[in-house]
Amino acid sequence: MAEKITPRVEDFPQWYQDVVLQAKLADYSPVKGCMVIRPNGYSIWERIQQEMNARIKDAGVRNAYFPMFIPESFLKKEAEHVEGFAPEVAVVTYAGGKDLEERLVVRPTSETIINSMFAKWVQSYRDLPLLINQWANVVRWEMRTRLFLRTTEFLWQEGHTCHSTLEEAESFTLQMLKMYREFAENVLAMSVVAGRKSEAEKFAGALRTYTIEAMMQDGKALQAGTSHNLSDNFAKAFDTQFLDKDNKKKHVFQTSWGVSTRLIGGMIMTHSDDKGLVLPPMLADTHIVIVPVVPKAAMGPAVYEAADKLAAAIKEAVSVKGLPYRVGIHVDKDEQKQSGWKFHEYELIGIPVRIELGPRDLEKQQAVFTRRDKSVKEFIPLADLPEKIGNELASMQKELLEKARSHRDANTYEVDDYDTFKKMLEEKGGFYKVSWSKDREAEESIKADCKATLRCYVLDENFEMINSNKPCFKTGKKDGNVIAIFARAY
Amino acid sequence: MAEKITPRVEDFPQWYQDVVLQAKLADYSPVKGCMVIRPNGYSIWERIQQEMNARIKDAGVRNAYFPMFIPESFLKKEAEHVEGFAPEVAVVTYAGGKDLEERLVVRPTSETIINSMFAKWVQSYRDLPLLINQWANVVRWEMRTRLFLRTTEFLWQEGHTCHSTLEEAESFTLQMLKMYREFAENVLAMSVVAGRKSEAEKFAGALRTYTIEAMMQDGKALQAGTSHNLSDNFAKAFDTQFLDKDNKKKHVFQTSWGVSTRLIGGMIMTHSDDKGLVLPPMLADTHIVIVPVVPKAAMGPAVYEAADKLAAAIKEAVSVKGLPYRVGIHVDKDEQKQSGWKFHEYELIGIPVRIELGPRDLEKQQAVFTRRDKSVKEFIPLADLPEKIGNELASMQKELLEKARSHRDANTYEVDDYDTFKKMLEEKGGFYKVSWSKDREAEESIKADCKATLRCYVLDENFEMINSNKPCFKTGKKDGNVIAIFARAY
Repeated sequence: MAEKITPRVEDFPQWYQDVVLQAKLADYSPVKGCMVIRPNGYSIWERIQQEMNARIKDAGVRNAYFPMFIPESFLKKEAEHVEGFAPEVAVVTYAGGKDLEERLVVRPTSETIINSMFAKWVQSYRDLPLLINQWANVVRWEMRTRLFLRTTEFLWQEGHTCHSTLEEAESFTLQMLKMYREFAENVLAMSVVAGRKSEAEKFAGALRTYTIEAMMQDGKALQAGTSHNLSDNFAKAFDTQFLDKDNKKKHVFQTSWGVSTRLIGGMIMTHSDDKGLVLPPMLADTHIVIVPVVPKAAMGPAVYEAADKLAAAIKEAVSVKGLPYRVGIHVDKDEQKQSGWKFHEYELIGIPVRIELGPRDLEKQQAVFTRRDKSVKEFIPLADLPEKIGNELASMQKELLEKARSHRDANTYEVDDYDTFKKMLEEKGGFYKVSWSKDREAEESIKADCKATLRCYVLDENFEMINSNKPCFKTGKKDGNVIAIFARAY
Repeated sequence: MAEKITPRVEDFPQWYQDVVLQAKLADYSPVKGCMVIRPNGYSIWERIQQEMNARIKDAGVRNAYFPMFIPESFLKKEAEHVEGFAPEVAVVTYAGGKDLEERLVVRPTSETIINSMFAKWVQSYRDLPLLINQWANVVRWEMRTRLFLRTTEFLWQEGHTCHSTLEEAESFTLQMLKMYREFAENVLAMSVVAGRKSEAEKFAGALRTYTIEAMMQDGKALQAGTSHNLSDNFAKAFDTQFLDKDNKKKHVFQTSWGVSTRLIGGMIMTHSDDKGLVLPPMLADTHIVIVPVVPKAAMGPAVYEAADKLAAAIKEAVSVKGLPYRVGIHVDKDEQKQSGWKFHEYELIGIPVRIELGPRDLEKQQAVFTRRDKSVKEFIPLADLPEKIGNELASMQKELLEKARSHRDANTYEVDDYDTFKKMLEEKGGFYKVSWSKDREAEESIKADCKATLRCYVLDENFEMINSNKPCFKTGKKDGNVIAIFARAY
């Protein structure tokens, strides 16, 4: 029955694909580049939505929904935007039985269609700030795709806001960046670097793009979320204006920010192991599985009854520290499958806690406790289990983050010259903190030479770039340098 | 500031549009036939999703997500299906900078793409039943569109299930139909008739389609949800087979069922009035607004403090009978707007309960209570308000349903001959229960003659059609007749 998962050390990308397919998180579809998100994967996305929605609402943002079709002419209104997205759009040219007069682009992102509405809704300073978010599917035609990480169609949230000043827009851009960082840490248990993108890597149409960058177990970077200060670029293109207190018409200043289903891929590559998915308890739908071990059929009723009683006690008592939900718990009474098979299966799909309960345990009023990320079996008195489970789920959430942070710290290097960088990158992977002259040509030549990209400029506590007195690690230029991180990335 | 809402008696369709636009529930978009769902409307959809998801989960169904692009060849595999949907699909022919080899249809519904995956996932009787649902956007190219009721792109849920026998598929089809009826009544406060569609009106590709039909305030019908027994039609087209216990390969039997954002339109046309939206408390995000009335600025602090205290007391005490949520409550301290303007605004957007609190009320330790659907002001002691509000919200939910049911009963007629039917339909609208010979040509001629359609066959408690001894009201045929409902519809 059970397929083998390729070990990480052998082939990391193959390991990732094995975990995604075998844990039934997603599947390839017959449509090139599009994936199917299966129930095990979609329930993670629903948890992400639930947690993100709470944070979005706390920031005063309201959800809405805009059309997925965008007139092609809209995309062309902002020069950098069309240059960035035109090569990867899908276009509807035929509908309702005939060719369309104006071709419709399937949204790759919604700044343009949303601005066409904002231009109508925003009239006065009283209408500002206008804070909107939508959960939607978007399409970007990709040549090389990978489940969750890069697919032609993906799911995301995209926030879009209007402000009366550039300063306020910048402040909100950073507020959302910080929210993403907190979300990555506390929900996904991923440790991320919040930084700023280079001119080459920023969003097409933005003044400035901020990012959170995570490190995967193979040392590669994953861009996990971005927040853009759009200045008045789209407002000018769509004439989104408001009458200010001084009775003058002014363009609004805008932000946009998004995270997508690629977070699921990043989360998998952060925590999982050679046995399958390791899922932070905050993202689990079922937190605990109880497996009654019944060597003889006659022992069944007593063990099942005890298992149900235990499940009820846990459900009643555990609404876990650090977890806002009631726990999900499943008692597996399937007699067609052997216990060993079940243990393997629940490890594969990442149930955080497994409890085994057999007739002898029952005599001793105990059960066997195993945490998915530790695999150490412990015998625990039944009466102590609810409290134990509550504590362990909270610890697991915390320790997964700590482990991810340690891994990143241990694989982040400061280097002063390009040759050392290139050699170390090839040997160890990881993040490289360097002194950097912001030279666009040099950035492109590094990418061409060793496939490393400028992940972000490192920021200080005020989210300003950090000046460096050292010469640029690539160009040797001495003045105006800042600290940047280079790495290979997904 | 305030625009006028056209009264219902004057022009019902214009009234509907006025309410939708002025309450900021939705807006027209620059893309033909597509709407924008604004935050006031989207929050209703989120409540619908939350309530529906709980019911779907209770039925053992799990959420997933499938690609929105469907290879055109898939659509053609089921003959009736392609005939039904081909005229209204939107087609992507160009993507990633070049013409596609195979054109991609934007899903009008997902039976075909989902079957292409089911065929892979279903191997054995152990994999059955397979119960899947997805929340998604779908596209059907429409010529005449109306906000929420009929738009080119709309949001919906579509359930898709596989079973080992036709009987089990039929049973699940009916289970979902009953769930929809219960949902319509208890959440939307809409009274619906559960019935079966005629051959002419059934889903393209189904063996049998069941429906819930609601009556709007103008006496017209609205199809509010459908549940289809697909038999093995799609399973045969996609070769979705399983190895049964008897070691034989068999095609699965399937169901599909869906409700969409048109429920919001139906809910509006069921409950709202000439002052704007009337929202069942179950669908409200903000249930109560407290408007402090401050005639002189100096009185402000005391009144605001009392309003905040009252809000806290209500929030603490009210987690309403019949409502599973904590109530949402807003204290409006905006001093730029007059109280009268605020009252009008909150009636327009349908806040279920309004509390007014002024300095004199405060002296008397009372406040003014008004329920949106009654508009009678009551003076209530502050100490009694939390209990009063809890009771009134529960009553409002119940009474809206009762009112909808009474309206439908009062506008449902039994007629025996076509001339009487046609005359009454023209004068009064409403539902017409008739004896019906199931003659497809006669059905089409009625539609052409007076725009009435066969809404459904009426069913008995076992969901079987009801035999009629009377002659058919149109053809005069005497044998094999059943009871059917004819009406004009949205």
